[in-house]
Amino acid sequence: MLDACLTPELAAELTLQPVRRYGVDAAIFYSDIMVPLKLAGVDVDIVRGRGPVFASPVRSAEDVARLVEHRVEDWSPITEAVSLVARELPEQTSLLGFAGAPFTLASYIIEGAPSKDHMAARAFMQAEPEAWDALANWCADVSGAFLRTQVDAGACGVQLFDSWAGSLHPQTYERYVLPYSTRALSHVTDVPRIHFAVGASHLLELMARPASALGVDWRISLDEAARRVPDTVLQGNLDPATLFMPEAELLAAVDRVLEAGQSAPAHIFNLGHGVPPNADVGKLQLVVDYVHEHSNKTLKEESDK
Amino acid sequence: MLDACLTPELAAELTLQPVRRYGVDAAIFYSDIMVPLKLAGVDVDIVRGRGPVFASPVRSAEDVARLVEHRVEDWSPITEAVSLVARELPEQTSLLGFAGAPFTLASYIIEGAPSKDHMAARAFMQAEPEAWDALANWCADVSGAFLRTQVDAGACGVQLFDSWAGSLHPQTYERYVLPYSTRALSHVTDVPRIHFAVGASHLLELMARPASALGVDWRISLDEAARRVPDTVLQGNLDPATLFMPEAELLAAVDRVLEAGQSAPAHIFNLGHGVPPNADVGKLQLVVDYVHEHSNKTLKEESDK
Repeated sequence: MLDACLTPELAAELTLQPVRRYGVDAAIFYSDIMVPLKLAGVDVDIVRGRGPVFASPVRSAEDVARLVEHRVEDWSPITEAVSLVARELPEQTSLLGFAGAPFTLASYIIEGAPSKDHMAARAFMQAEPEAWDALANWCADVSGAFLRTQVDAGACGVQLFDSWAGSLHPQTYERYVLPYSTRALSHVTDVPRIHFAVGASHLLELMARPASALGVDWRISLDEAARRVPDTVLQGNLDPATLFMPEAELLAAVDRVLEAGQSAPAHIFNLGHGVPPNADVGKLQLVVDYVHEHSNKTLKEESDK
Repeated sequence: MLDACLTPELAAELTLQPVRRYGVDAAIFYSDIMVPLKLAGVDVDIVRGRGPVFASPVRSAEDVARLVEHRVEDWSPITEAVSLVARELPEQTSLLGFAGAPFTLASYIIEGAPSKDHMAARAFMQAEPEAWDALANWCADVSGAFLRTQVDAGACGVQLFDSWAGSLHPQTYERYVLPYSTRALSHVTDVPRIHFAVGASHLLELMARPASALGVDWRISLDEAARRVPDTVLQGNLDPATLFMPEAELLAAVDRVLEAGQSAPAHIFNLGHGVPPNADVGKLQLVVDYVHEHSNKTLKEESDK
């Protein structure tokens, strides 16, 4: 996985495949949140069926001091991959950059392996606030530089993905996490910035602050999200489980998302989370085509007015 | 694990140990949400490091028809265990019954093994609403009978635990899940009923409907929960991660929970989720003693008025 992400031709090909297959309006750079850590020389590997595993989890201020010495010397695998994609993408297709948010990176670094509740990370931030600050700032700058590299090589916007933020109380998020996500995104304020976490409907208002757009998972409707963050563009939020339903139920669910999305200043149609590995490609194509038809019809209605 | 739950002396001993060790005000019957399925003859086992695994996952209307033929013929291991506990508990200590909610049971039955996103179950309920209804009703009655048995043997209240409900949109929850949790709880309307799910702050209002009390995890504060469900007793919600913090930070967090809990008509102090296996027993004792001191002080202040 990490090898594929760091081999420019492969990363480019994997980024382009869904655009060729489905004709979607944007590509998202194929990468992994661990890629910048690997480039910084951190000893991490992705173990099949398990996830990222670190040779030396960070559990003390001393561990943090050692970790933050790591620097990315060479971003060229990313620059090359993004440039390849930018060259091959159809002109009207956007390319989005991608990075993991500092809390999610730091969680993995502290836990040392995937964890259900991120207990060690959540305790560390409050028990060792200074060491946490050093670690989270380091993660923020690594993520920020990763995004900056992608934008400089041709990405026209970015998505910051905070896998585990939903496990936090809003006050904890605001004090120990948001400042670092803001710092990561401050590297790319010249482009649109999408901020996303799953199971984080209690954090929408806070997550919207440093972002231009908010990704919303399927747990709440876009019209409710729009009421709570009225000036924010929304992305989402078809429940991936609908891909396993019969066509009629699937399209009814797409209709509900499109309808609710009209409450936002703008709506980027998307799934509410990743594509399930066993999803039927025919169903995905159906959704893409249906949404395109719908938006062409909407555009035509608007121009007829 | 399931053997321990079905051996009355062992289940009773495991229920009583935390009461003896910490002097808490209530015992919760030591069991597992899979216990009633096992008693009904469903082929399920708990695999170490993995969780419940079913020999035959239920994936069609025919599978459901076969499954719902299962009946619990003999609840005596539960009756005996609860009776043993009731006999040995100090008089002022309450005993709470416990069961998994129908959606969580049905999710495991459909997925066949632990799943991160319960995608198969979430798709099944909407794609096959009639088969889902049959399956969820069966689960509701099995859970309800499990609770009823515990109450008849001496439990003075119950907790219905819906591990995965937080993964649902409120409309999905209301239509495909709430009716069955209501049905499970309808077996025990003569006692207080606590309803609990993690990551479910978007579902509080709905979950409160069939319940006398709501368990709240650590993701939102009790005063916010109290604003949203003002007539409901609240249980919770100390973040288990605080058990890994230094004493001062831990007790400050306890204070915040006690303070926020005053917004509710009544507050049952508890962790916001289970005790982490590697938690320090000294820290747990500290929390129990501190909360007892606080409530004695509050009671004294009230009687002095």
